[in-house]
Amino acid sequence: MKVIADLCVIPMGVGVSVSQYVAECEKVLAEAGLTHHLHAYGTNIEGDWDAVMAAVKCCHERVHAMGADRITTSLKLGTRIDRDQSLQDKIDSVRSKLD
Amino acid sequence: MKVIADLCVIPMGVGVSVSQYVAECEKVLAEAGLTHHLHAYGTNIEGDWDAVMAAVKCCHERVHAMGADRITTSLKLGTRIDRDQSLQDKIDSVRSKLD
Amino acid sequence: MKVIADLCVIPMGVGVSVSQYVAECEKVLAEAGLTHHLHAYGTNIEGDWDAVMAAVKCCHERVHAMGADRITTSLKLGTRIDRDQSLQDKIDSVRSKLD
Amino acid sequence: MKVIADLCVIPMGVGVSVSQYVAECEKVLAEAGLTHHLHAYGTNIEGDWDAVMAAVKCCHERVHAMGADRITTSLKLGTRIDRDQSLQDKIDSVRSKLD
Repeated sequence: MKVIADLCVIPMGVGVSVSQYVAECEKVLAEAGLTHHLHAYGTNIEGDWDAVMAAVKCCHERVHAMGADRITTSLKLGTRIDRDQSLQDKIDSVRSKLD
Repeated sequence: MKVIADLCVIPMGVGVSVSQYVAECEKVLAEAGLTHHLHAYGTNIEGDWDAVMAAVKCCHERVHAMGADRITTSLKLGTRIDRDQSLQDKIDSVRSKLD
Repeated sequence: MKVIADLCVIPMGVGVSVSQYVAECEKVLAEAGLTHHLHAYGTNIEGDWDAVMAAVKCCHERVHAMGADRITTSLKLGTRIDRDQSLQDKIDSVRSKLD
Repeated sequence: MKVIADLCVIPMGVGVSVSQYVAECEKVLAEAGLTHHLHAYGTNIEGDWDAVMAAVKCCHERVHAMGADRITTSLKLGTRIDRDQSLQDKIDSVRSKLD
């Protein structure tokens, strides 16, 4: 099962600057070979369900290992069985209605 | 790794009444033996990370099998390594400050 | 326009224990006279759109005033124009399918 | 109070293709003069709290007017009082740790 996800990992109790933790999660996604795209409030991810979920778990493990005792994550998960759709397809579909 | 989660599964394209799909997800969580609590905009879940994630995947599979071609899910995931905390502990902690 | 909302306010950089801030938000909702119900990963709220949104803004103002320099909030917003539905209606609708 | 937001509007019961509704929301944000950036699972928005919230309400009104009887929206809201930060600043901050 393929999934389009949106991941926002928030380490708590480590100060107000958390970009180093987000950067570590970007590395996890890259190492996993997953298509991903960083935006200003999370990261779009495209891939096989199990591979994406393994990467999300790895993000929590790495961010805890960096010293964050508590993490709260928001994850959106989109699946569809009618047709295949990529991250770019979703954006293109909206943009085509704006022209 | 233990996780406190909040799951909100939204089947798309099956009409405005989706309670039968949410009820199916409740059954999945019960069958998995996970502590869970339904509220008006999702379900709190407490358990081992892998068991919770397996249940979330099963929810998508079941809801697709019921006829929903597309699903979008919001999932919150809270982990902490400083101490153990249950669903009820979280609620009690807030309520104790309201007395 | 009536809304059913789910609010989860996360103060950042104030340590891993945030229940005092969540409790303050509960007080804001109570003062606003909004029907609300605390769960383990947020608070369900029912009310007029503008009243709910004014309360959410007030939560941010109060939590900043308590010393949190940064806040990230997850808010779900459900509106429907086909029929009226309360927080309890939503829960009852799912539970009726579980009997 | 300035806010960085992430908006994902999901019309329910109108089929599995919802890009026309998302496109309408993009128009609302553009008409409101708000800085915004579409990604594959929502739209980043930057602006004054009240202006952003007025636009979100307008999105619900427009999508209902287009024929969607039910809408469920996920909204993230980030505020900080320690310093000013733009959508691009957030992305740049993470990317600088990846070089």
